[in-house]
Amino acid sequence: MKTIKVELGERAYSIHIGDGLLLRGDLIGPHIGGTQVMVVTNEVVAPLYLDTLVSTLTDFDCHSLVLPDGESFKNIEVLNSIFDALLERRFTRDSTLVALGGGVVGDITGFAAACYQRGVAHLQVPTTLLAQVDSSVGGKTAVNHRLGKNMIGAFHQPSCVLADTATLKSLPSREFRAGLAEVIKYGLIRDPEFFQWLETNIGATLDLEPEALSLIIERSCRNKAEVVAEDERESGARALLNFGHTFGHAIETGLGYGTWLHGEAVAAGMCLATSLSARLGWISEEDVRRVEKLLLRAGLPTRPPDALDDARMLELMAVDKKVLGGRTRLVLLEALGRAVVSDDLDPKTLRNTIAHARGAG
Amino acid sequence: MKTIKVELGERAYSIHIGDGLLLRGDLIGPHIGGTQVMVVTNEVVAPLYLDTLVSTLTDFDCHSLVLPDGESFKNIEVLNSIFDALLERRFTRDSTLVALGGGVVGDITGFAAACYQRGVAHLQVPTTLLAQVDSSVGGKTAVNHRLGKNMIGAFHQPSCVLADTATLKSLPSREFRAGLAEVIKYGLIRDPEFFQWLETNIGATLDLEPEALSLIIERSCRNKAEVVAEDERESGARALLNFGHTFGHAIETGLGYGTWLHGEAVAAGMCLATSLSARLGWISEEDVRRVEKLLLRAGLPTRPPDALDDARMLELMAVDKKVLGGRTRLVLLEALGRAVVSDDLDPKTLRNTIAHARGAG
Repeated sequence: MKTIKVELGERAYSIHIGDGLLLRGDLIGPHIGGTQVMVVTNEVVAPLYLDTLVSTLTDFDCHSLVLPDGESFKNIEVLNSIFDALLERRFTRDSTLVALGGGVVGDITGFAAACYQRGVAHLQVPTTLLAQVDSSVGGKTAVNHRLGKNMIGAFHQPSCVLADTATLKSLPSREFRAGLAEVIKYGLIRDPEFFQWLETNIGATLDLEPEALSLIIERSCRNKAEVVAEDERESGARALLNFGHTFGHAIETGLGYGTWLHGEAVAAGMCLATSLSARLGWISEEDVRRVEKLLLRAGLPTRPPDALDDARMLELMAVDKKVLGGRTRLVLLEALGRAVVSDDLDPKTLRNTIAHARGAG
Repeated sequence: MKTIKVELGERAYSIHIGDGLLLRGDLIGPHIGGTQVMVVTNEVVAPLYLDTLVSTLTDFDCHSLVLPDGESFKNIEVLNSIFDALLERRFTRDSTLVALGGGVVGDITGFAAACYQRGVAHLQVPTTLLAQVDSSVGGKTAVNHRLGKNMIGAFHQPSCVLADTATLKSLPSREFRAGLAEVIKYGLIRDPEFFQWLETNIGATLDLEPEALSLIIERSCRNKAEVVAEDERESGARALLNFGHTFGHAIETGLGYGTWLHGEAVAAGMCLATSLSARLGWISEEDVRRVEKLLLRAGLPTRPPDALDDARMLELMAVDKKVLGGRTRLVLLEALGRAVVSDDLDPKTLRNTIAHARGAG
């Protein structure tokens, strides 16, 4: 087992990574303040891992709640069903919520913990690669609103994150590959050595070799933990984690959520951001080819979907930008392994980059 | 104008108290980060003060939202209507919410600010005595759930509180008197000199003499600010602010919300807690009479309502306690002006106190 500390003063916590951690009551127990525990999961994960986790928590008054599966259920109504369950069972202010599942379960459970009686403790037990390397770490919680993704939420750090690599064996291959997009992202934005490691070891990773899995999760979490420790509430450096995401969100919204997975849209978005960086002369065409090659080997898309035309894509990006502050704001690369926020982008350069991406690929 | 600072480090803010502050753009402007402002108010307050406040904010892109009036609308559905309004008008992360109204408007608007895009700034402009001396200060925000009051919420401090004493002239007398219950509470729990001042000046206060009004609001806010600075998230000293409230909540729930005003229920609750303290030998019967006399002069109830029998009252208090942690926990007086939390109360003493209160009065 490996352990990474997220250094946030009185809100500091550990991320444990290893095989079989769902059985480790010794890791979970110390983070449960009172006696009441509510494990929140979904209908896909419950049959696989809920009994195991509940049997690990027999020392506590352990309840569980199974939500419907999917991004479309990450909304205020389902959030309210968590509050119903907690209040019907008279959960007190010293109770603990445990999120067992992927990003949707983690986000909505974390937000429920942030608001229930003005804040109770919660643990994250992510069961997808995306959640293990990204969404379970850093305290961003939210639900969607019909007018925007993650628009209602809170910063609420977990007491502990338990990434059991054994759960990845049951993950569909497409979802695993989508998670790899965020892994590759850490290499691109701040860890050139990790990017090189991935170029050499992407095969072993796709074969789910235990050492490779453990390394990519640890390295990703370490990168994320450092960024979050530096900028908990996203007023600065944390924005770099959005590399590829403005393009990616436009693709997700344009196609309708679920058509492309988040990681797939981010992969295409990272290619666009990389091309744009080259067009500005910040990196070389050779760098662009290295990024595309790695993403292709990971089985990820490297250009925008045909079903979404350039004009619509630019329009959706403008909305995303507007919501983020009204300026043309994108994360770009100064080098492979070093990202920066660019605030004053020429709209024409952006348009040309997207048009050119259609021709390539 | 008087100004009190709530000392909370990077979350520190000022409370301004004075006549005509709704017109003081110079006090409000510096707390508005971006350009977008949403004034949230209700259908009773809007016709009285909304135009005035909006005309003070002409330098900004100022919008307003009028909610239905009453505690029954402090719920997740109405909260969601605030999110709708913000998202439909494309409010960004640097926008500001302004709560113009009483406790309900302040609580729900503060909670909307806590959650919108994971937290935006908000100002409190309280227009009732209760909100000016209590709910607008300290960052407790919430909505009700059908299974409990204030069960869903957040700690989210305002950037500034503006208590315009001129707004109290339009406040119904019964609501003003209910607000006085919380004012008297500060004297009882931690400010014996203020309690004495109130004994002498309750007449001038009820006559709305400007100097008396200014003094009671300032002194109340100063007391609250000190307690909040010491214990922002209610892990210790802040619990003393709940003096009379466990009894009070039982009365409010037992009669149905709105039958007695919150302050009226708290007044009767403070009398019960005071009697109980005397029964334990901590204070004298003379002390009890002083408290009852002041509350009676303020036009407030000093014993539980006839419509609520002892058994039901005790049952409701048990629920309240259970929700708060499972122990018999009450705030009592060691002296007039010094409250403590009592954790191990004999249920029989509690029962006798309530039964005796029926005979008295």
